[in-house]
Amino acid sequence: MDKERFMQQMAFALEIDKEKNIYRQTHLSNHGRNENDAEHAWHMAIMAYLLKEYSNEPVDIGRVMIMCLIHDIVEIDAGDTYAYDEEAKKTQKEREQKAADRIFALLPEDQAKELRALFDEFEAFDTPEAKFAHAMDNLQPLMLNDSNNGGDWKEHNVAISSIMQRQIQTKKGSDELFDYIKERLDHYVSEGVIRNE
Amino acid sequence: MDKERFMQQMAFALEIDKEKNIYRQTHLSNHGRNENDAEHAWHMAIMAYLLKEYSNEPVDIGRVMIMCLIHDIVEIDAGDTYAYDEEAKKTQKEREQKAADRIFALLPEDQAKELRALFDEFEAFDTPEAKFAHAMDNLQPLMLNDSNNGGDWKEHNVAISSIMQRQIQTKKGSDELFDYIKERLDHYVSEGVIRNE
Repeated sequence: MDKERFMQQMAFALEIDKEKNIYRQTHLSNHGRNENDAEHAWHMAIMAYLLKEYSNEPVDIGRVMIMCLIHDIVEIDAGDTYAYDEEAKKTQKEREQKAADRIFALLPEDQAKELRALFDEFEAFDTPEAKFAHAMDNLQPLMLNDSNNGGDWKEHNVAISSIMQRQIQTKKGSDELFDYIKERLDHYVSEGVIRNE
Repeated sequence: MDKERFMQQMAFALEIDKEKNIYRQTHLSNHGRNENDAEHAWHMAIMAYLLKEYSNEPVDIGRVMIMCLIHDIVEIDAGDTYAYDEEAKKTQKEREQKAADRIFALLPEDQAKELRALFDEFEAFDTPEAKFAHAMDNLQPLMLNDSNNGGDWKEHNVAISSIMQRQIQTKKGSDELFDYIKERLDHYVSEGVIRNE
């Protein structure tokens, strides 16, 4: 064992523990507390494995899973940016790139490159794996929010146009999952939970 | 899309959300709160990906990751059994098998079989993937505990003989990672944090 290499790997492994303290706007099912990034990533990776048959294109599921698991690591420095916070979204890219520069550099060079490439691939949203991982990033919080009768949408008074701007991206990864999401959103609009604008 | 099949998959995906409420004895780094099972599984899966070069045998890392991600799902019903709670460990197997029967059965039959087989494989501890996943199950809490100066061992007044009984199993997955663990444990015994018995 190359001890210096191993200690770099362990330094990264310990650093990402902080992701468990980054809380999102989404609430756990049964009207639970806010969810954190590590839990969200865990849930997305399992859902990717279970729902891979709905991907528009064949995917390497191992790559989708690791992409899901690490996609929010940058939020350790950059914080969580709520999907419908237009002000915060203006600086999001810059904050997250800076965070990626610092955090992935803790790893040995080959692994820093490998994980950064996976993160960049997720962000670029071009490959079948990135598209399906994004579909999970959208479906997972929708599922929790649906289980809580749309409480998060109601709390933030979100308009259907804002939600659709994001959720339409789900179609890139899975037409079938988007159809399901659309059905649920229509339901909450008709119930007056989501603002019809 | 077969809607009935999809709704079974989503029922399972929602059910496992409860794993985020199962708290372990391990504390997060920086003397944080107790860790939950979903966070632990997320952390293990990433560590498996990063540290796979130390596995004694070649592993299919996608299988190791999904095994790590689902290995504690049974604790939704069975609760967390602390590694050094000898009384609780007597009934652990039975409680967890019963939980596996219920929870995996929420899935469509083919996926119920597939995930149950992965869970059983982890438990049986025979394949290279199961052995390496177990090594992560041991290394991840050790890393956090080490970052907190051994606070969890101290709190529970654990003897080195009990810890070694568990950690010796890490050797099945990785001799190199076991050597590192042994070095850290020796340190905490010499510091009087772990009881030398």
